[in-house]
Amino acid sequence: MERRPPGSSRPTEPGPCLSGQRGADQAASASLQSAARARPGRHPLAVAAVLPAGGCGERMGVPTPKQFCPILGRPLISYTLQALERVCWIKDIVVAVTGENMEVMKSIIQKYQHKRISLVEAGVTRHRSIFNGLKALAEDQLNRKLSKPEIVIIHDAVRPFVEEDILLKVVTAAKEHGCSDCDLEFGTECLQLALKYCCTKAKLVEGSPDLWKVTYKRDLYAAESIIKERISQEICVVTDTKEDNKHVSHLLEEVLKSELNHVKVTSEALCHAGRDLQKIILDQCYNFVCVNVMTSDFQETQKLLSMLEESNLSILYPVVVVSVHFLDFKIVPPSKKMENLMLIREFAKEVKKRNIWLCGLLISYPQDEQKLQESLREGAIIIASLIKERNSGLIGQLLIA
Amino acid sequence: MERRPPGSSRPTEPGPCLSGQRGADQAASASLQSAARARPGRHPLAVAAVLPAGGCGERMGVPTPKQFCPILGRPLISYTLQALERVCWIKDIVVAVTGENMEVMKSIIQKYQHKRISLVEAGVTRHRSIFNGLKALAEDQLNRKLSKPEIVIIHDAVRPFVEEDILLKVVTAAKEHGCSDCDLEFGTECLQLALKYCCTKAKLVEGSPDLWKVTYKRDLYAAESIIKERISQEICVVTDTKEDNKHVSHLLEEVLKSELNHVKVTSEALCHAGRDLQKIILDQCYNFVCVNVMTSDFQETQKLLSMLEESNLSILYPVVVVSVHFLDFKIVPPSKKMENLMLIREFAKEVKKRNIWLCGLLISYPQDEQKLQESLREGAIIIASLIKERNSGLIGQLLIA
Repeated sequence: MERRPPGSSRPTEPGPCLSGQRGADQAASASLQSAARARPGRHPLAVAAVLPAGGCGERMGVPTPKQFCPILGRPLISYTLQALERVCWIKDIVVAVTGENMEVMKSIIQKYQHKRISLVEAGVTRHRSIFNGLKALAEDQLNRKLSKPEIVIIHDAVRPFVEEDILLKVVTAAKEHGCSDCDLEFGTECLQLALKYCCTKAKLVEGSPDLWKVTYKRDLYAAESIIKERISQEICVVTDTKEDNKHVSHLLEEVLKSELNHVKVTSEALCHAGRDLQKIILDQCYNFVCVNVMTSDFQETQKLLSMLEESNLSILYPVVVVSVHFLDFKIVPPSKKMENLMLIREFAKEVKKRNIWLCGLLISYPQDEQKLQESLREGAIIIASLIKERNSGLIGQLLIA
Repeated sequence: MERRPPGSSRPTEPGPCLSGQRGADQAASASLQSAARARPGRHPLAVAAVLPAGGCGERMGVPTPKQFCPILGRPLISYTLQALERVCWIKDIVVAVTGENMEVMKSIIQKYQHKRISLVEAGVTRHRSIFNGLKALAEDQLNRKLSKPEIVIIHDAVRPFVEEDILLKVVTAAKEHGCSDCDLEFGTECLQLALKYCCTKAKLVEGSPDLWKVTYKRDLYAAESIIKERISQEICVVTDTKEDNKHVSHLLEEVLKSELNHVKVTSEALCHAGRDLQKIILDQCYNFVCVNVMTSDFQETQKLLSMLEESNLSILYPVVVVSVHFLDFKIVPPSKKMENLMLIREFAKEVKKRNIWLCGLLISYPQDEQKLQESLREGAIIIASLIKERNSGLIGQLLIA
């Protein structure tokens, strides 16, 4: 069976397939969505996208063209493709890359399992690249590999944060207004190219601040921080079904909630073949805290790691797993358990290959209620920083709260 | 004696006082510098700066006005003030803040030891704030607290990366061209205000990409990454004078150099009352690695920490100190030394109050040369990530390579 990242299933028929990342926008764009989904009595609008990606990134000050610069290990262009792929009514995505980057681009598509992508060779200018993309869409009608588009979205490969609602606005505007003389005069040459070679109408639509373009090195930094922030919005605390473990998990969950405003903290048991946990994984939670009480073994953590490995959740983003061990440091000083705990280095090395970043965390588990609250708080701060910063240098480390 | 951060001495007479951060630019701006330093046969140009800082940061999407948003714990405006203060020929810096932020601003000036700053109340608009700043410069002539400026630089409080060379270009342009009708027409109202209320000439000069303005939350992320990158350009490896320690330090230094391109790695001995080390501190190196061989005690690290505490280096930026302990894990498993090594948590808590971020790192020290190289490499990767990411959640942790 083909393995796909969860949440990335792409229905062949248009339907509600907005990603969950911007829940508040969903209602607002619901009415717009119908525009692209289907027109009464007619077939749904055929939409394609062309991404000019032949630039060399001179202003970036780095040797790699900016569209291939890695963010959390994945090239920038893959984030842009992901943003477009989530929009199920975009039937084809044509990417124009230079001959020398053709193989790199093919391996990116394969590694990150992008779908509906065709590649064409970029031209010497951005507009020539767009032309090549449009030509491919126009000429492919005999092969029937690509759908004949009524509307073509021209989208920069280095604008990774494009949302479905803005794409819908573009498509709706194109459908309603067509391509006026005014657009041709004040718009860019792209609009003329679209009209000339595809008989396809286009219009200039104002973008949102989210639509910014990665131009300078500082934009790459900003993009990385935004992506880190987006995938740190949810933490799932998991443990087995023992009463004591559930109690401690609950305490940690509460402290995490109070320390991390705006972060959704859920908890799940590692039982019933983990069906609830499977749902969390499908819903794209990228952060897991596995709670172990008075034990230094990794049985539960390993169960969780197996589930994550099978899920393919980590194809697009690194998944952070913190194996938390509550130990009473007075009865068992951390040093006594060190030998066993050091095994985490081996597990971490193994799952790192699958883009799962494992760390260990010992939390002091004193009898005294107030002291326990203090060590829980310290633990929560460390968990928060591991998740927010996603520092790959700390993989396999054992931290102490 | 008043304690100042190193490298921030401000000569009262104009002279070469460029910071070392952009060495390559120094030569380029040397000729320009003379323009502001002195004009033959005349007194040096009197330059002041006015910073409108009364904004509320609506576009930022955060409750704190953007000029007060913390970057590595320090408010953004303090970085802008630091950039202007480094320029010794700017005699006075007038900041316009709202009444409700007056006390916050005063405490920022005190905490980060800013000099040559005067505060005025901001107006309801940016231009009104500039007006208030200029008025203060014009009216203060009786008090003689402020110098009467011939040229006033109007600078946004949220453009922290302004360099001396661009300020010199502004001043030189103002001096040479004056304020033409064309500027008044196409420039901003600021130019008119400057002319009207200070009889001071101004001209619109094109900025560099470094001069960007922190507007959105993403800009704050970018600013933090840029600052982290800037203060991670140099690492100093220190150890005592024992032959074995010097040898291991040298090996680590070599591996750090090969792992960290573009980073300057120096090494110094903790001896002769650390005079050479004092120079490194004065030259604003913010990253220290203290090498200890076959010992788990912190004597040398504590010596280094004392020197850093006395230097006040950490007033403006967090200083990262990694206490590295080379141990032969076969002879002494890390767990045996754990009790003593855990003391690092206490030291770290203590120096954290002074903005010094201490971490421990055990590096395996096997007899086998190839294995040693491997563990040195692993150690260097961890050191690099501690320094580059400056993750405050890891203060006091003991990591293992």
